[in-house]
Amino acid sequence: PPQVSSKKTLSPDHPCQRFVLYYHDILFDGTDGANATSARATNPTKLGNNSDFGMLVVFDDPVTRDQHLVSPPVARAQGFYFYNKKEYHSAWFAYTLVFNSSEHKGTLNIMGADLMADKTRDLSVVGGTGDFFMNRGIATFQTEEVEGSKYFRLKMDIKLYDC
Amino acid sequence: PPQVSSKKTLSPDHPCQRFVLYYHDILFDGTDGANATSARATNPTKLGNNSDFGMLVVFDDPVTRDQHLVSPPVARAQGFYFYNKKEYHSAWFAYTLVFNSSEHKGTLNIMGADLMADKTRDLSVVGGTGDFFMNRGIATFQTEEVEGSKYFRLKMDIKLYDC
Amino acid sequence: PPQVSSKKTLSPDHPCQRFVLYYHDILFDGTDGANATSARATNPTKLGNNSDFGMLVVFDDPVTRDQHLVSPPVARAQGFYFYNKKEYHSAWFAYTLVFNSSEHKGTLNIMGADLMADKTRDLSVVGGTGDFFMNRGIATFQTEEVEGSKYFRLKMDIKLYDC
Repeated sequence: PPQVSSKKTLSPDHPCQRFVLYYHDILFDGTDGANATSARATNPTKLGNNSDFGMLVVFDDPVTRDQHLVSPPVARAQGFYFYNKKEYHSAWFAYTLVFNSSEHKGTLNIMGADLMADKTRDLSVVGGTGDFFMNRGIATFQTEEVEGSKYFRLKMDIKLYDC
Repeated sequence: PPQVSSKKTLSPDHPCQRFVLYYHDILFDGTDGANATSARATNPTKLGNNSDFGMLVVFDDPVTRDQHLVSPPVARAQGFYFYNKKEYHSAWFAYTLVFNSSEHKGTLNIMGADLMADKTRDLSVVGGTGDFFMNRGIATFQTEEVEGSKYFRLKMDIKLYDC
Repeated sequence: PPQVSSKKTLSPDHPCQRFVLYYHDILFDGTDGANATSARATNPTKLGNNSDFGMLVVFDDPVTRDQHLVSPPVARAQGFYFYNKKEYHSAWFAYTLVFNSSEHKGTLNIMGADLMADKTRDLSVVGGTGDFFMNRGIATFQTEEVEGSKYFRLKMDIKLYDC
């Protein structure tokens, strides 16, 4: 008879690989093209309370090992987010971490809700390529710094369980 | 020698977890900000035959256990869809089911084509977090009700195979 | 004690299923609605150097077994891409391969960076339905032809490891 899918043996506390990365987003304001790493592809809609509902941002953001924007990037984060709450700022992300260093070559593909009202929030690592061939896992976001609509930094704690 | 990936033992008819949910989408018309739960981030393109090709909608929609919009939500569906057929309305979805109740805490991440011409259509549950840690599965959509461009309700039959 | 997730036994060189497909994208220019298969949902932003940063394209593209646009499609590719590099054209894709033939019925859901500066690039097959129930794998892209902003063809080498 067909088998019921097997019980999961993965434990959240025991990833087979883990790394903490910092994501830096510098939103284009129309004049700072040299520094900006992301831009609005759509304007906010008129729905909601100054929460930018519907504003979609495309990014090619540097990712560093420590918190410093000026540190050498160990990866790029390429993808998009948009705001999707009426009441307050909250976002949804889909993106690829692109590694191209002596340490790692390959990509991790990530998607999920960035529930900004929560201190930490979990997104899904849904696939990987190259050194991360067929990996899956969890990316835990934490906002580290926000400078108006100009800059924000996220801590991304990447845990892989399917290495 | 390297192993060929093992034969699948999962059976579509034997999910390890299953729940039926109802998704309610109330599209913002410019005046009903209090009730609306979604908004157009882009306008339809001029391609196609009144099928809204390229119209992208961002949503934060209530999800209920029964068909009634006024029932207490058991989750939010946060994400987007867009129409992508020239000949008729058909859509593509990516979104997160966000559970935050006494019964379930966590998220399911879902993407796929909503082939609206078919009675039922399967999308992929590509990841999960919290109570749904590393879960995968199938989300079967069925349109239940459409009220012009104002409201529609989908039945979402969520089947997890990787619990 | 909780188990560490098991070592992967999959080998990139030994997919359990593989097929090579050709993806044809004909971008709507405002007048060729009969032939066009995709359209700009957003305009390029002013960020970057004529690299169309932030331009998002929705598509319903034919997919063939050989390189000829006029060959009978074996699938449709439904989804979107956007450009996300300041320096040159590079894209990010999320889409569904929709099979509806005597050979295959079902879908494959795919996402990842299309790093156009690389000769080949790997995206993730993050889920499947129907004949591809719960499949995962890698989709390797290679650009085959580009005709201005009007037409391009990608070779998509789809390898499934989780059949």
